[in-house]
Formats: sequence, structure tokens, C-alpha cells
Amino acid sequence: MRDNFKRWLPLALVTAVGLGGLSTSMHGDAKNLNTKKEPEIKNVIFLIGDGMGPAATTALRYWKDDLNTVEMEKTAFDSYFVGKQMTYADDPDENITDSASAATAMSTGEKTYNAAIAVDNDKSELKTVLEAAKARGKSTGLVATSELAHATPASFGAHDPSRKNMNEIASDYFDEKINRKHKVDVLLGGGSANFIRDDRNLVNEFKNAGFSYVTTKEQLLHNKNEQILGLFSKGGMPKMIDRNHDLPSLKEMTNSAIQRLDRDKDGFFLMVEGSQIDWAEHDNDIVGTMSEMQDFEKAFQAAVQFAKKDRHTLVVATADHSTGGLSIGANGKYNWFADPVKAFKRTPDFLGETIASGADVEQTLQKYVNFTLTENEMNSVKEATKTKDMAKIDAAIEKIADLRSNTGWTTTGHTGEDVNVYAYGPGKEKFAGLINNTDQAKNIFKILHTGK
Amino acid sequence: MRDNFKRWLPLALVTAVGLGGLSTSMHGDAKNLNTKKEPEIKNVIFLIGDGMGPAATTALRYWKDDLNTVEMEKTAFDSYFVGKQMTYADDPDENITDSASAATAMSTGEKTYNAAIAVDNDKSELKTVLEAAKARGKSTGLVATSELAHATPASFGAHDPSRKNMNEIASDYFDEKINRKHKVDVLLGGGSANFIRDDRNLVNEFKNAGFSYVTTKEQLLHNKNEQILGLFSKGGMPKMIDRNHDLPSLKEMTNSAIQRLDRDKDGFFLMVEGSQIDWAEHDNDIVGTMSEMQDFEKAFQAAVQFAKKDRHTLVVATADHSTGGLSIGANGKYNWFADPVKAFKRTPDFLGETIASGADVEQTLQKYVNFTLTENEMNSVKEATKTKDMAKIDAAIEKIADLRSNTGWTTTGHTGEDVNVYAYGPGKEKFAGLINNTDQAKNIFKILHTGK
Repeated sequence: MRDNFKRWLPLALVTAVGLGGLSTSMHGDAKNLNTKKEPEIKNVIFLIGDGMGPAATTALRYWKDDLNTVEMEKTAFDSYFVGKQMTYADDPDENITDSASAATAMSTGEKTYNAAIAVDNDKSELKTVLEAAKARGKSTGLVATSELAHATPASFGAHDPSRKNMNEIASDYFDEKINRKHKVDVLLGGGSANFIRDDRNLVNEFKNAGFSYVTTKEQLLHNKNEQILGLFSKGGMPKMIDRNHDLPSLKEMTNSAIQRLDRDKDGFFLMVEGSQIDWAEHDNDIVGTMSEMQDFEKAFQAAVQFAKKDRHTLVVATADHSTGGLSIGANGKYNWFADPVKAFKRTPDFLGETIASGADVEQTLQKYVNFTLTENEMNSVKEATKTKDMAKIDAAIEKIADLRSNTGWTTTGHTGEDVNVYAYGPGKEKFAGLINNTDQAKNIFKILHTGK
Repeated sequence: MRDNFKRWLPLALVTAVGLGGLSTSMHGDAKNLNTKKEPEIKNVIFLIGDGMGPAATTALRYWKDDLNTVEMEKTAFDSYFVGKQMTYADDPDENITDSASAATAMSTGEKTYNAAIAVDNDKSELKTVLEAAKARGKSTGLVATSELAHATPASFGAHDPSRKNMNEIASDYFDEKINRKHKVDVLLGGGSANFIRDDRNLVNEFKNAGFSYVTTKEQLLHNKNEQILGLFSKGGMPKMIDRNHDLPSLKEMTNSAIQRLDRDKDGFFLMVEGSQIDWAEHDNDIVGTMSEMQDFEKAFQAAVQFAKKDRHTLVVATADHSTGGLSIGANGKYNWFADPVKAFKRTPDFLGETIASGADVEQTLQKYVNFTLTENEMNSVKEATKTKDMAKIDAAIEKIADLRSNTGWTTTGHTGEDVNVYAYGPGKEKFAGLINNTDQAKNIFKILHTGK
């Protein structure tokens, strides 16, 4: 508000003084005051927290809460909350969306069937906002912690009748060109297996086309090339709290992408996905969910920080859908405790794998969990270990976190609740109120066309 | 931004006039453009959907969906969505709110402990927005489908260290006066047991003080008195789909309250609660939840309809908290089906009671459920009937609705997710974005004080 005031008050005075009070010019001025405030939008950073439903965003606030104050401390998202979006799909068999149709809605403005990658119900290809940005001479980027060929980034940079065709999607990133240029300039995430294949080595093809190729955080941070392919794992990247120092955070990938893309005087479009909030929720894993929420929050903060300096950047963050039927409180308890979740230094997946690989149950839990398990809790993991089934060991550990924190789950799939929309920068008001997920693309297409 | 603009523009112009000599007509013009649109706020209608969390509001949209169109049809709330509110309590032992502390936050602007009725953590009484309205000469009303002495209405019209003291709360409605006048002019809802007691007959006391007393819909609709006590059941009212024709809907009570209150030239404050969305969710009953969501939706529509004509009325609707860990979709299914829920002509509670009272299981289900139960489903109810435990019969019937609709639940208690805020009329922008539940009262106090 202050900003706005400061920006136009001097103008009003200078103009009024200069013109000596002509009523027609004054009318014009009043008009200017309302239209001049929004700088041209050159860049759009669109962030998707996959599966980041209303319980996940509230859980993050409980996580931030300083227990010594009455007020609950806000998350980095909270100040930028502008509204909600509806997520339902246009699928003949399912009225709850998957990530592919949701991302297609947000990237193309069209509702489609579940599993569709930027194609319509008749499987015809739909233009994406990333493609529109590239067609207008902007640089483009895709950043994710899943495989880069996974549904969400795919729906911005590829076209396929099925999300399952991840190799073909990776090929699209190289093969599909706009004005003879590669469609995506910055590709950072997981999923080298979709790029380095028996039938094709897309890494070499990208390198031959002038792209840098990096596989570690250090390589990424030291590389300055405007076009880059960074693949930091064979499949999806490890979750934040399981990641070792060789691997970049989502924030580091985001900043690295912005620095490259920002060199284009025509501006850029960047899609950033916190991919694995959803994966953790599918697994009903509150530890992993909070790990990925934090990774995504920091990436959002980095985007806003850039936008605040730049002043020509619109940042929008939202989710594609809710996942897991997560609830803050469960089993009749009127508390959600973050501390038992914070006590985990690795995800239950990591612990389950470690134990399934032969590590001692007690030693593993002592090493990676910051509270002393009750005898019942310890026995439940030991019982699960007898099955030698990693998933069962994982589930036993997850249950401990659920019961101690009072976390509830109703499904290993998606749910239909509206999801939050956050926005910062010029044009943000377009995303306010209750919108449809297709409005995201419709707004961005308009912004790319008009600069506002 | 607009607010700021309004505040500063006259200053800028006045200064400009001083400096440059601006025509006064111009000043008027520019001012009109921006300030004329907001009429004075005389009336505030504040509606609370108890337990109406983000899954309940989305479920209502799925319920409205015309399956022959791609777009999902909107609810009466959707067009008025302005933001969300945080609901956490300031309770030493619980970080998820109950209805008493949440209503106290919304009625007084202060966070307090669970069970507090308009008292602070030290049990001192807090001024409510209803009391402030009465102190400014406005008429006031409380409408609910629970007992009138239940936590939510109580927190607007009474003060008590505990929500459990429902008789004392009912007495407060009569005994606590403002400027020698009874605090609440229109009291419509359930809970005659708290008014007609061995120690006191508050109904007679109200009648002697000039209030009308009604107990049926017909009496209510034919009565024109400005002060009225309507008690339509001993405890909470039956849920909408269980209600007989003698009983008013929440919409009828709301309209009836508005008609009376609107005769006060000083304006009015009215609180309307859809009390039993929460009760149905506590019971993990999706049939009852949708019944009460619709009852509440129609009351909201009625309030907005009045406000649209009146132009001096602010309508705000929100929830106190989420309940039940309700999810749209469950058990890995990517669908939420309204039809199996719509098939119920009465709540599972009603069916359970009917069966527990000796009615035939098959005949009862055939009469009140619009689909043919599978053998397994029928057997599950018959098995439960053997226990002669109404709650078990109820639960068996609820489970059929859950499994057919893919409805999920995680708790019989409350959950902590942020809840939606809807607003219509002058001043609505004050309630936009992410607010705290205490901001509801803070905004309304300001509006009562300044008329804007």
C-alpha cells in the first residue's frame, strides 16, 4: 500500500502544479493514478506444490509456531495468500484430478482427462504457457524434484496422451522446437533414466546443442551457461531431509534457474515444482510431507525475493490438488504436534530401507529419531521387520509419527478439496478469489500477450 | 490499495489546489469516482457454518455438479469467497480450537481457552460485537439449529467460564442488559430445556418482558413482534432432512429474524449458525453433513438476497473450524459421488433410531434409502442391529454412505485447517485474504463504530 502511495503522489503533485489546474488534464491524471501503478510483467515464475492441499499449508504454520507466543507464526506463503482454485478434472471416469490433467489445466487453460500431458480429451496437442513464452522470445525453465519427465513439468514442456510415456516426454523436451529453438532452456531435476537410454542419449544431444550438463550441486552452482540440463538422480531426487550435500535444494535449483533466465532481456517463464509433497502424502508419511513442504517454501521465498528486487516479475504459487486426506488432528485429539515430526532426521522411507537392508532396528531408530521409542513402538517396528517388507517397516515407522503428532489420513490417493493460491508482483490480483485451475493458464497467456 | 488511494487522494488534491489552483468541481469528481461506491454499513449479518471446513465447502460444489456439463456448478457461497481464516485457540492444553473459543475469537476479538464463552483466559468477561451493536442502539438477533445456549450463539450473547453451563447461558440472554434493554431481541433455535427449568421459567420471563414466544414454523411466520423467542425443540433441532413441516428451516428463521430486525432505523446485528454441520461430522455422517450444508447455504443466500436490496448490509459467512477430517475421496479412489448420499431421505441417525426402536431393518432401509443395498451392506446393518446399540446401527449405515461416495474421515473431533471466509456488501474487503478469527470481531467493532 505504501509503495503505491509513494509512487503516484509525487506524480499527482508535479502534474497538478505544472498544468496549473486544468480540469480535463486532472481527469486524465486521476485515470493515470489507477493504471500507472502496475509495471510491465516481463517474467512469470509459477510454482506448484504437488499435493499441497489446505491441510499441508496449515500444517506448515503449526510447524512454524513458536510455542512461547500466543500468535501462530506465519509461513512464507501466508502473506501472499490471494485465494483458492478448483481442481476437478474433465475425466469421463474420475472427478478427482491427477497431476497430469491438473498441470495441463494450469499450463494450457483446458480441462482434460487424467494422465493427459498437454493434450485435450481428443488427444490433440494444446499450446502451453511455456511454449507461448518461448514464442514471444522469452527464456524458459522447468525445475522439479521428481523426474523432469514426470507429469507436472511434462505438462508445461511436452505433449503426450499418457504421463506414463516418460521417455517420449523427455524426448519432446529436446525435439519440440519453437521458432527453431529448443523449447526449454533450463531443465533441473531428477530422472536421468529418461534421458540416458538404450535408444537415445538425450544428454549428449543436449550437450551437442550447446547445453551444459550437470549432475551435482557444485557443478550447478559453478556453471553459468544460459542453457543447462541438470539431472541429479536417476529417478526422483531424495526428499530434502534425505538429500546429501552433493544434491541441490529446490531453492538452489530455483535461484540457479532464475539467474540464467534473467539474462534474457525479453524476460522468462519458469515453472518450479515441489514434486514430492504429493509423494510423501501418497505414502501417508507426515515426516516426508513436512520435509518437502519446507523445501518448497524456501523455493517460493527465493522467487519472491527475486521478484521484489526485479519489480517486473509475477510469482504465483499453488497446488495441483490435495493428497492423502491429510488432517491436522486425528482420532479425537484436539492437538497437532510438530515436535514428534521434527524429531525425525530422515524419512521413514529411508529408515525402512536401512532396516530392510539389514541394519539393526534399535540402532537405526536411535540414530535417526530424536525421541526414545516406547516398548510398544519399538516392537511394532521389529514385528514389521520380520516380514522383510520395506513397505511394512516404513508403514510401522510412519504410524509412530502419525500417532504422536495426531496426523490423520484417509487415502493413498488424491482428494478433491480446493487448494490455495498465493501471488506476488504485478498482475497478482488476476489470481485472487475463487478461480478455476484453467484460469492460471488463461491469465498467464494474457500476461505474456499484453505484459499486464 | 483502494482504501489507501481513497485516504490519500483528497489530501493530494487539496495540496495541489493550494499549490497550483485546481478547480473545485474537479476535486469533487475525482473524489466521487472512488468514495461514492461504499454506502454506510447499518447492518451486519454474520453467519457461522459450525465445522464447515474446506472439504465440506468443496463437497457442496460436487453436490451441485450437473454431470452433463464440464464445468462444476458453483455453490451459493463460491461467488462471495474472499479468503480464509486461521482458527487455532489460545488454550494451554490444546492447539485445535473448540466451538466456544473459536466463537469467542470471532465475537470479541480475543483468543481464549477451549470451552470459554466470551471470557478471556483469566475468565474476565469480554465485550462481544452483539453487545457493541446493542450499545449503539441497534437491534440484535441469534439464530441457530443447535440449542440457543450452545457454544456458538452463547459466545455472542452471554458470558460463562464454561460452555457446559447452558442454563446459566440461557439466563444471561434474559438477565444481561445493555442500557437497560435486553441484549438480544430475536432468539430463534432449539433448546427449550435450557429456558423452561425447575429453577426458572425464562419463557415466561421473556413473555412478561414483551417478547413473543413461538414453538412452530407457523407461529413464527405469523408473528410480527420485533422481540421474539422461538424454541423449536427441547435440545438441538432435527437435521434439515429429518425435520417435519412444523419446524422452520434455517433460511426461514434467518428471514424471519431479518424482517423483524430491519425495522430498527439504527440497523441490526444478526448471528446465524448452521450448527449441525459440525454435529454430523463429529458423527462421521456424510448424509447429515450435506443436509446441514444445504440448510446453511440457503440461509446464506437469504442473507445475501436481503443485503443486495438493502445496500447497507454487510454479510460475512465463515466456519469456526473444520471437523471430522472429512475428505473428498478416500481409500485410493479418485471420485467423490454425491448420488449415494442424495439417495438418503433421512439421516443415518434417524434410521438407526427407527431400527433400534424395533422397526424392520429391510423395510426401514427400503423406505428411506433410494438404492438397493447389496447383501453385504444389508447384513452389516443386520449384524449391528443385533447389538441393539443405536450408535452401532447408525455407524453401519454411515459406512455404506462413506464407501459408496468415497468419503473419508480421520477423527470424531475437530481439525486445524484454515476455513473459508465469504463476504458480500460494503466493507467486505476488510475480510479478504488470510485473516485470523479474531479479525472478524475487530473488523465488526470498527464497522459498528464508524459505519464503514
